[in-house]
Amino acid sequence: MSFPGSSRFEIIHGATSIAAVSFFITFEGIEGCGKSTQARLLVERLTERGRRALLTREPGGTELTLHIRELLADPDGELDRKAELFLFLADRAQHVTKVIKPALAEGAIVVSDRYSDSTLAYQGYGRGHDLDWLTEINERACQSTLPDLTFWLDCSVETGLERAVKLRGGPSDRFENEPLDFHRNVHGGFVALHQRFPERIVQIDAEASPEAVAGAIDAQIAERLP
Amino acid sequence: MSFPGSSRFEIIHGATSIAAVSFFITFEGIEGCGKSTQARLLVERLTERGRRALLTREPGGTELTLHIRELLADPDGELDRKAELFLFLADRAQHVTKVIKPALAEGAIVVSDRYSDSTLAYQGYGRGHDLDWLTEINERACQSTLPDLTFWLDCSVETGLERAVKLRGGPSDRFENEPLDFHRNVHGGFVALHQRFPERIVQIDAEASPEAVAGAIDAQIAERLP
Repeated sequence: MSFPGSSRFEIIHGATSIAAVSFFITFEGIEGCGKSTQARLLVERLTERGRRALLTREPGGTELTLHIRELLADPDGELDRKAELFLFLADRAQHVTKVIKPALAEGAIVVSDRYSDSTLAYQGYGRGHDLDWLTEINERACQSTLPDLTFWLDCSVETGLERAVKLRGGPSDRFENEPLDFHRNVHGGFVALHQRFPERIVQIDAEASPEAVAGAIDAQIAERLP
Repeated sequence: MSFPGSSRFEIIHGATSIAAVSFFITFEGIEGCGKSTQARLLVERLTERGRRALLTREPGGTELTLHIRELLADPDGELDRKAELFLFLADRAQHVTKVIKPALAEGAIVVSDRYSDSTLAYQGYGRGHDLDWLTEINERACQSTLPDLTFWLDCSVETGLERAVKLRGGPSDRFENEPLDFHRNVHGGFVALHQRFPERIVQIDAEASPEAVAGAIDAQIAERLP
């Protein structure tokens, strides 16, 4: 059975019927904004409510791209910036084809911890790759699979980095090791993306407690999930 | 010390002087055309003649991209075609920055077993990605480092596949497992590239014996290497 993006479909289970919708949600934000936690909590809540929901992530949302995630971790700082970009795009193309599209086609809600906006924020605003080119190549990697709803968990760079260091006991990946200006540029990227796509991208105050953040997310879900 | 592409520079070693040139040679062709052998033999001959020559290859010309080469081997056929393309481009960007550019800057002759033409022949003519887009993105991955001379080892698809199977005891990579039409399209790609860049790409009859092929390569080297 195949369901086009964001369509509704009723699956009958004996006497009860549950709504099967294909809906694509992404979580975005800087390091330490809490998006991995909130993406997981949202999928848990959706599942408890009888929804069919899949939690996935980038990079590393497929078996093959777990290896790409390892290359991107690059502890020796040996990775060329263009090579980094192409690895993220390879990861996305594989993720879309093997995980996201098939799950949406089966009527699942797909929740991804990072997706296309991260490429624009990190490789565009952060690394300085040309934004027009990046937008075009990013769309090719997405293969027409775009998020229906994006939660941008917005906190200050200082809060984010402090949390990331606490959580992992020290800066653990190459982005966390970047200078403060890099993170400020990435944050500025998310601000700009939110301004450009105000309907799709919902800004959530991620300085609040995890409970308050989950509440704000749920309010949006109640309103926007078919 | 830095040397611009293809420039000459005299390094004085005591009483003798040897010519240090930065010159970039690539070997291209279909599976089983003999390019890996001929690339190695050329570097051996250049080194014997007192030249500083580096043998490298794509994919997998750096420590990091050896892992990309493993992903591209993809024995389960799970790799999305766009993901495949982006992995080759990541491999190239890293290879250029970490191996080819530094070696050329030190005045070496760099000999690469496959480079940018393979992307156009395999992913363009073979896989059917849009050629204009591929040319543009390929140039970005090359970062202005283009071959001075390319040996296209031309043999028929039948000869190439027969040799490849013999050499490795069976088809061993995903390209060798592709149908005959794929290889015919790739071969057609090399024909088209040769027509487009007749000065840079030298066609070598690779149906001939390895000795005859080496002789034809040496004749070109004598004529064209600074």
